[in-house]
Amino acid sequence: MAGNVFGARFRVMTWGESHGPAVGAVIDGCPAGLPLSEADIQEKLDRRRPGTGACVSARREEDRVEILSGVFEGVTTGTPISLLIRNHDADPSAYYALKDVYRPGHADYTYEAKYGVRDHRGGGRASARETAARVAAGAVAEKLLGRFGVRIDVYLTQIGPVRLRPEEIRPEKARENGLRFASEERLSEALRYLDSCRAAGDSCGGLAECRVTGVPAGLGEPVFDKLDARLAAAVMSVGAVRGVEIGDGFAAAARLGSEMNDPMAPGPDGRPVFLSNHAGGVLGGISTGQEIVLRAAFKPTPSISKEQQTVDRAGNGASVSIAGRHDPCAAIRGCAVIEAMTALVLADLWLEQEGARADRL
Amino acid sequence: MAGNVFGARFRVMTWGESHGPAVGAVIDGCPAGLPLSEADIQEKLDRRRPGTGACVSARREEDRVEILSGVFEGVTTGTPISLLIRNHDADPSAYYALKDVYRPGHADYTYEAKYGVRDHRGGGRASARETAARVAAGAVAEKLLGRFGVRIDVYLTQIGPVRLRPEEIRPEKARENGLRFASEERLSEALRYLDSCRAAGDSCGGLAECRVTGVPAGLGEPVFDKLDARLAAAVMSVGAVRGVEIGDGFAAAARLGSEMNDPMAPGPDGRPVFLSNHAGGVLGGISTGQEIVLRAAFKPTPSISKEQQTVDRAGNGASVSIAGRHDPCAAIRGCAVIEAMTALVLADLWLEQEGARADRL
Amino acid sequence: MAGNVFGARFRVMTWGESHGPAVGAVIDGCPAGLPLSEADIQEKLDRRRPGTGACVSARREEDRVEILSGVFEGVTTGTPISLLIRNHDADPSAYYALKDVYRPGHADYTYEAKYGVRDHRGGGRASARETAARVAAGAVAEKLLGRFGVRIDVYLTQIGPVRLRPEEIRPEKARENGLRFASEERLSEALRYLDSCRAAGDSCGGLAECRVTGVPAGLGEPVFDKLDARLAAAVMSVGAVRGVEIGDGFAAAARLGSEMNDPMAPGPDGRPVFLSNHAGGVLGGISTGQEIVLRAAFKPTPSISKEQQTVDRAGNGASVSIAGRHDPCAAIRGCAVIEAMTALVLADLWLEQEGARADRL
Amino acid sequence: MAGNVFGARFRVMTWGESHGPAVGAVIDGCPAGLPLSEADIQEKLDRRRPGTGACVSARREEDRVEILSGVFEGVTTGTPISLLIRNHDADPSAYYALKDVYRPGHADYTYEAKYGVRDHRGGGRASARETAARVAAGAVAEKLLGRFGVRIDVYLTQIGPVRLRPEEIRPEKARENGLRFASEERLSEALRYLDSCRAAGDSCGGLAECRVTGVPAGLGEPVFDKLDARLAAAVMSVGAVRGVEIGDGFAAAARLGSEMNDPMAPGPDGRPVFLSNHAGGVLGGISTGQEIVLRAAFKPTPSISKEQQTVDRAGNGASVSIAGRHDPCAAIRGCAVIEAMTALVLADLWLEQEGARADRL
Repeated sequence: MAGNVFGARFRVMTWGESHGPAVGAVIDGCPAGLPLSEADIQEKLDRRRPGTGACVSARREEDRVEILSGVFEGVTTGTPISLLIRNHDADPSAYYALKDVYRPGHADYTYEAKYGVRDHRGGGRASARETAARVAAGAVAEKLLGRFGVRIDVYLTQIGPVRLRPEEIRPEKARENGLRFASEERLSEALRYLDSCRAAGDSCGGLAECRVTGVPAGLGEPVFDKLDARLAAAVMSVGAVRGVEIGDGFAAAARLGSEMNDPMAPGPDGRPVFLSNHAGGVLGGISTGQEIVLRAAFKPTPSISKEQQTVDRAGNGASVSIAGRHDPCAAIRGCAVIEAMTALVLADLWLEQEGARADRL
Repeated sequence: MAGNVFGARFRVMTWGESHGPAVGAVIDGCPAGLPLSEADIQEKLDRRRPGTGACVSARREEDRVEILSGVFEGVTTGTPISLLIRNHDADPSAYYALKDVYRPGHADYTYEAKYGVRDHRGGGRASARETAARVAAGAVAEKLLGRFGVRIDVYLTQIGPVRLRPEEIRPEKARENGLRFASEERLSEALRYLDSCRAAGDSCGGLAECRVTGVPAGLGEPVFDKLDARLAAAVMSVGAVRGVEIGDGFAAAARLGSEMNDPMAPGPDGRPVFLSNHAGGVLGGISTGQEIVLRAAFKPTPSISKEQQTVDRAGNGASVSIAGRHDPCAAIRGCAVIEAMTALVLADLWLEQEGARADRL
Repeated sequence: MAGNVFGARFRVMTWGESHGPAVGAVIDGCPAGLPLSEADIQEKLDRRRPGTGACVSARREEDRVEILSGVFEGVTTGTPISLLIRNHDADPSAYYALKDVYRPGHADYTYEAKYGVRDHRGGGRASARETAARVAAGAVAEKLLGRFGVRIDVYLTQIGPVRLRPEEIRPEKARENGLRFASEERLSEALRYLDSCRAAGDSCGGLAECRVTGVPAGLGEPVFDKLDARLAAAVMSVGAVRGVEIGDGFAAAARLGSEMNDPMAPGPDGRPVFLSNHAGGVLGGISTGQEIVLRAAFKPTPSISKEQQTVDRAGNGASVSIAGRHDPCAAIRGCAVIEAMTALVLADLWLEQEGARADRL
Repeated sequence: MAGNVFGARFRVMTWGESHGPAVGAVIDGCPAGLPLSEADIQEKLDRRRPGTGACVSARREEDRVEILSGVFEGVTTGTPISLLIRNHDADPSAYYALKDVYRPGHADYTYEAKYGVRDHRGGGRASARETAARVAAGAVAEKLLGRFGVRIDVYLTQIGPVRLRPEEIRPEKARENGLRFASEERLSEALRYLDSCRAAGDSCGGLAECRVTGVPAGLGEPVFDKLDARLAAAVMSVGAVRGVEIGDGFAAAARLGSEMNDPMAPGPDGRPVFLSNHAGGVLGGISTGQEIVLRAAFKPTPSISKEQQTVDRAGNGASVSIAGRHDPCAAIRGCAVIEAMTALVLADLWLEQEGARADRL
């Protein structure tokens, strides 16, 4: 319960600091007999990796994953899957100057308030580096879900002030650009904005949208482990996320019931068909069988080179300017993490559903 | 893991259906030696209770709580606290007509997809009735937190289209009106809107804001049990909530890092003082010691008397109009539930923090 | 984690004190669609109940169970099943004299050391009364297991010094006598011994044996949640139990490997057949498909009317003689509790096994 | 819940197969600020290591532990502590002949029945190799407990038929010999017996006793997480253990209440003093402050070179003789594992106790 374990049946424990020797994840509860290779995981890690161009941090993270256990002759054995990713190119000396100062917008002060000590090198455990382990574990969950036809798509609809109108969103375009931005037409606008942020020594926020297809009706555990509650926790647990919504989300506050309720009609196979999806694929915390739709708001990367006012550990006023290579927009890399967390939630609830009905035991 | 247990150290299991004999909660992990009476809990239940006037459901729920265990001679003993609330005034015959039809916006279809069976009477476990048990358990958590000076305030800043601008919000006014609306000046506007909804056989959404004072720096368990992640899950687990945000929330997506980061300055007692609170009191998933600020968007009550298109269990098209007494705006009563869930998260994380530091053991 | 929750997938929380208004259990995770009635549970409670004759406590506990939730039209709905048993015939005044004294062999002193307070009436939560809730919850688990052909038999092979030799054990005889003693021939000997204990104001221990048939190979979760580890915890959690063994148990310490290993031979249906069962039906923490065999040693009931030396809360020396109606041999009623705990473990691990293999999802 | 996680507050996940690249453990919940080095852990691993002479397996396991996270500048930081032990000297070809045959007394058949697949190399996850990770994690727990003055001693009182009478047991002697045998006088007898086993291609069982001093009154969480229940699960989860008892254990079945209850008298510091310790330091599942005493029976190592009857995966009869270097008596190395598991339980319950009393928050 110290916070580094996620899930109940498809359970993951992650570990590792930004500038320690490695980060990793151990998965307990992955069903036996699933074909799994390092390449399956590597593919997802590569998509998280800093890309080319001005968009993302230039830190060269090779992020080679090693599977240390739980896979034999190419399939999972039902025993824990230990995943290891060595840290490279991590020069802690760059952070030495920040040893005694609390960076604004970072967890430096709060970790120290909580634990009395902290690993100051690059944010330690609070670094975005930690998410590499999530992505690795999420890749295994996604491999499992893929067998059932589940597909997860995450893309940005907003970068700073460059916000796509609903009719402008083209999820398929996000796969073609390094920004995961769901538009071809407004891509250059977004790039220009990122350049201006970087030039100003500043950073910007963004909005990610996640759509999941292929989830059957019936996943999610009321009352407290509702599918949407679990997704909200999963997504909000990503460091830079400040808000989560499902379906119509915050817009629902201004809706009428007659606008919000999704009517149903007889479907071709005898099952009901929903005529709209304001609910975002979840009713009463249980999947409806429709597309699951959620959105996550990312705050700007807190590491900026602009000078900021702060204090040091001795309580004296200080000013800080964070040099180094940082993503100007954490939301870009964040997409891979949202995808991973969504996969972890769905794999967990999928296994939960096994055993929910006496007539299927 | 079937979803009816909340928390790890201050752990609550709730049970009960809308039209069964009772609903209840059992708390395991409340520290021994806490003065506690039924009156402490009753006070919170009364605030959740349907009020007078046009605003909330007219169902007369007496909601008398009984403490069946865990309290001896007025103090908690460390053993489980069992809370029972009998259901009254629950006429299942009113729901008999809905036995075979899936109400739009309700969990009728999804419960059946999940479990194969469902208690159709008033929504069964998916009814808002379930939240009475949360409020009862939350009252115990709040009693515990009160000892440490923690105070939780929840109020509405929006009812349907009637939305308060930031400068109009007056939290203290929310305690004076049955709507928990944080304004005196625009209260009549909100009431008129609710009346119009009711007259039209419709319902509306709302926006709740929650502010917590008195939480010291250091609460929250990174990586997955971050304070904000736990709050997001807690709040999203309330049936009608569709979105959650912390601090600047969704607005952060359009911010610059230099705007979003909260600068720090030396404080009077040697501890740093934050000069703003865009973070909403949480950094890296750990409380900063500032006010915790979150917002939750409620969808409109799905039960409306307007006719809606749907299907029945046999797969035939049907139309449904839900008669009976329903809150036109679920957000109003929802405030008490947000308060309870926030208290449960904080009590749990408070106890988690005990034992986090070797120098304090 | 405060200790009143058992199981992960078939999860039970129990509550209640000996002399409070009631005891109860809430089950979260019972599969939906299981036929269940109060009579199913009552039958097990009745078998736990004080019988006739000299053997067991004369306290008249009616132990009527009420199902307050989770069952609709005679079948479980997948939502929590709340079970309530009112306490009757509980005269706390009888215990008032013991308010300030620590009874030897009881948990009076340890509860106070732990919690700082205690409910002194009849032992409060530490009373054997607590096991009524276990038996009620276990009955639901046993109902579920019965669908799969699992059968649990618990009987005594020793009462005080009256110990059956292996060849004397007749499990079927245990159902015919109020002592659950697995012998007809030596029953009168056991009864005479119990009478002598009672006459001397003393109590005695006993040995229970549990045999489970119908469990297929494959249940149990290595490494820490092995079937035998889970059974050991379950059985040792019963207050008076002081030792647990599986299969050959303690005798294995003196065995050779060639005596202890169970050889296998081809079976009629292509599956292997074990030629002996020294393992007691568990290898590597996973069921073999053979009969599961465990034994539990019960200490004597600590409540005796013989005078004993002790201290009071103020730290003064005292002597105590515990009047009232107490079972001279806790093992007799303990059989029903061992049966319940075994059922809870097996139901939990049965549901765990759902989802363990990708080829069966 | 797939079985590889232990503990709630001091939580450990272990992973790794006998002949995979490594085994490891991750600890989540170790308090921050605890001095910890690889040497602290190495010392315990070395004591588990195969010794010299005829007593234990000759496999050369270097068992060098690496700390990959959670420790910074020599102290724990409160974040997960990842421990890695590379596997050496593991020649899987030795096991290739056993690929398709179920070894009697091993988990080959049950793993396959459970998971459908298995890593046949050296028993995979079911190998005693897995316990290296437990010992590493236990060393951290023991370091924490050492701060509070807790000391754990485990030694053998029986090796095969060589059984020490109570008055012969000399725990301090166990530290001086490679067998952990609590006697100097009867050591050569035990060694001769082990030699005869080895010569006959056979193996033998043993009995371990564990004594813990320095535990204050108040640890343990009734009802289901009693100190003795948790210890029973912990100890029984060690592969070769077949029985566990606390205090008088199985002997209690033949005791009178007046013999078994431990009388109390006023102590020098105002606290009561127990005049005997039949309870083994636990009453009502909570520590009494006395020495905790438990015993564990180990079965003989199932790997023997004597020919045994079995079946292969195709269902045909087969005979098997397991060559290679195996401990003739698993109990010898098992002592280090019992010590580790005991430490893990106590550290976990120690942290649980933090937060149990409102007057100490």
